Amino acid sequence: MSIALANSSARGRNAVGSAIGELDLILGDRLLTDEAALRVHTHTTTGLAAQLPDAVALPETTEEVARIVKVAASFGAPLIPFGAGSSLEGHVNAPFGGISVDLRRMNRVLAVRPSDLDCTVEAGVTREQLNERLRGEGYFFPVDPGANSTLGGMAATRASGTTTVRYGSMRDNVVSLKAVMADGSVVTTAGRARKSAAGYDLTRLLIGSEGTLGIITELTLRIYGLPASIAGGYCPFPSIGAACDATILAIQSGIPVARIELLEPVQIRASNRYSNLSLAEVPSLFLEFHGTEAAVAEQATAFGAIAAKFGGGPFEWDSRPEERERFWKARKDAFWAATALRPDARTTSTDVCVPLSRLADCVREIEADLKGHGLVAPILGHVGDGNFHVLLAVDWDDPSEAARADAFMKRLAERAIAMDGTCTGEHGVGQGKMAYLAAEHGAGVPVMRAIKTALDPLGIMNPGKILPG
Amino acid sequence: MSIALANSSARGRNAVGSAIGELDLILGDRLLTDEAALRVHTHTTTGLAAQLPDAVALPETTEEVARIVKVAASFGAPLIPFGAGSSLEGHVNAPFGGISVDLRRMNRVLAVRPSDLDCTVEAGVTREQLNERLRGEGYFFPVDPGANSTLGGMAATRASGTTTVRYGSMRDNVVSLKAVMADGSVVTTAGRARKSAAGYDLTRLLIGSEGTLGIITELTLRIYGLPASIAGGYCPFPSIGAACDATILAIQSGIPVARIELLEPVQIRASNRYSNLSLAEVPSLFLEFHGTEAAVAEQATAFGAIAAKFGGGPFEWDSRPEERERFWKARKDAFWAATALRPDARTTSTDVCVPLSRLADCVREIEADLKGHGLVAPILGHVGDGNFHVLLAVDWDDPSEAARADAFMKRLAERAIAMDGTCTGEHGVGQGKMAYLAAEHGAGVPVMRAIKTALDPLGIMNPGKILPG
Repeated sequence: MSIALANSSARGRNAVGSAIGELDLILGDRLLTDEAALRVHTHTTTGLAAQLPDAVALPETTEEVARIVKVAASFGAPLIPFGAGSSLEGHVNAPFGGISVDLRRMNRVLAVRPSDLDCTVEAGVTREQLNERLRGEGYFFPVDPGANSTLGGMAATRASGTTTVRYGSMRDNVVSLKAVMADGSVVTTAGRARKSAAGYDLTRLLIGSEGTLGIITELTLRIYGLPASIAGGYCPFPSIGAACDATILAIQSGIPVARIELLEPVQIRASNRYSNLSLAEVPSLFLEFHGTEAAVAEQATAFGAIAAKFGGGPFEWDSRPEERERFWKARKDAFWAATALRPDARTTSTDVCVPLSRLADCVREIEADLKGHGLVAPILGHVGDGNFHVLLAVDWDDPSEAARADAFMKRLAERAIAMDGTCTGEHGVGQGKMAYLAAEHGAGVPVMRAIKTALDPLGIMNPGKILPG
Repeated sequence: MSIALANSSARGRNAVGSAIGELDLILGDRLLTDEAALRVHTHTTTGLAAQLPDAVALPETTEEVARIVKVAASFGAPLIPFGAGSSLEGHVNAPFGGISVDLRRMNRVLAVRPSDLDCTVEAGVTREQLNERLRGEGYFFPVDPGANSTLGGMAATRASGTTTVRYGSMRDNVVSLKAVMADGSVVTTAGRARKSAAGYDLTRLLIGSEGTLGIITELTLRIYGLPASIAGGYCPFPSIGAACDATILAIQSGIPVARIELLEPVQIRASNRYSNLSLAEVPSLFLEFHGTEAAVAEQATAFGAIAAKFGGGPFEWDSRPEERERFWKARKDAFWAATALRPDARTTSTDVCVPLSRLADCVREIEADLKGHGLVAPILGHVGDGNFHVLLAVDWDDPSEAARADAFMKRLAERAIAMDGTCTGEHGVGQGKMAYLAAEHGAGVPVMRAIKTALDPLGIMNPGKILPG
């Protein structure tokens, strides 16, 4: 997929140039314009072509972000927020040029409050950094999208991941945000009460807005006590249908699974090869349970009985760290195992999400589709949410292969939407999924556009993302 | 508190009159204009004076609601959505006249999908009606604000209640909404996937918008399997601080309490009298646990140990229905017990929510405040969320008493906001809390107003609510 550089008008260039001149006075050597820095800030990890910004700003405070926004607004220059650069749909690309606002210098944990079960962090703090800090005090932050993303980026893209089935996504675990809006005003979306019925939910409006409505600079997040015991296990199934049925019954039965991950046979094969394992190459579930020693044992036993009911098993599990990590090795290394299938290609991860009852159908149809089009792609999923990833190995420099991959991703998104699902469960829209927004949201798109226009009348906040132009 | 009828301009009256004329052709005898009907639709259950609409419409389909909105839009006539009329902050009042849109004829459960753990209902279905239907199939919908509200109203006011500590509020349990926007367009905010990262979160924007952005006509909701076992219990504490500390430690420890309710001594005294009980008149917690027989026993035992650590107890609990209901009698009848304290007055329930660590301080200060101002008001709370209610018995016809009650509610809201909490945890803003929005949201208020103006440029959707004029 290739999107042409659109920032070619003299007017656009002049506006950005003037903004850069003024920002240089404010930021000095924290305003970068060298090619290497620009390139790093548009690494898309996908087939989307890099579209470089004109400069990278490295603010250190919310007030500095507000000054940057005011300067950009005065010249009409685009702003592209940047966290860890681990987004997957071209969120950090700069199709109209402009200034990448890299928040990684804002990386302080401002407060951890065990009595309130919350913490406040700057937007550039990463998930692992926060969890290292929390672990010492007996707590953790559960949302785990895999990459070591910044928490600001995770909120902006409504990230979720393996633990969502139990703890929810960023949508559920953000108490409040501080954000700089398009006019440079600084909004704190809520206090720190665990719930509120006071006014429009600006917190949830900003979560998933991908920097198109404001730049998140600070977050107050829910934290949880580290579980007394964690059990992990692995369970093979005779079919994808059986694995999905077992998952549904486990959730219906109220077993509070902390993670429940599906690996399809192509992925298991890749993992066997990469991690030197000898798992049966069948649909398999990887589970984790959190609780007291007695509770996780009861949950694991109950799950084993459910799995057996659908012909699955044996369900092997353990609560000793080394043992449970052994069971999880195939899941843990899945992305790298998929990548190793075809080292010359770029592994591109796409995702969709469907109602639980449609998951098995959807995966079966996708596997047939891949096979029919000569594509090799492992599939793995957060099966408790109906969300799965297809890890396409694509040589994006080969136009015919790139076209086949794009066509597949289009069919994938359309299939999920037709099943009353969504074109993206957790990766976001960015540039890559813009084309499906109308099919998915219909009359909701004009509503989104009205909000965008009302809050960013100049169109400077991450333009060219989410809403098709 | 009294808000003058503002719909006195000839222009406003003419617009509404013309709209009524046109709606009469569409709805026939489902358009009511008799005084009794108008009065029933503005019953506020508070000290807020009733402000009658000019007519009540009784639509039966989303399409009819859309037609009503289009007619109202063409004349600029206000629309006030109405569910069960159980809201507590004047949400259903008509300060500018207009048409009350009563959704109670839209009361069909459209689908229950056990495999997806969701259901779809029309907005006029009540909580109890849905749960009766679900119970037969082994499921339940957990959000329980006490009143038998409609689910549309619960979404519109971001309702929560006793089970929020475990299952979340309406914010967390709505998968998707169908709503008629101010221009008559019908938006479905999302598919039925359990999560999505595709675009702005219109679902959460409408939840808590109190009818000021659109009229909710249909909801897809999460459902849960009925727990195998439910245990209920009661635990007295030496102080409010001890009860709060035990609550915090229980949550930190990961005990998944399903309900944890605090009753303060004045409430216990009222309950003892009303329900013929003999509970110690001290701060007391009422708990419920959901799970397997073994899990609830483990949880209850763990809680008992925590309570003892803070001088609380004995913690008595049971999983037999009659026994656990006996423990919960004081909590269940709390509102009526409070009302019986002073039968000549109107019991008005107000609520705030603060971070858990501030709850004990807040309640202590409020009790001193009440005492200092000669007010009698039981306090009870959803202590796991930091949310509590003050049940003020007020003779609203006595101007001096009404003024004292209003002044108290103002101090209550301001105190909660100063503690980094919110002026309302679950009742909503309506008319009653509008005055505190600026103090709570600061620069967020212009953002809310920009959204309101963008989505309802004519200002016809429940005007005079949430955002001060």
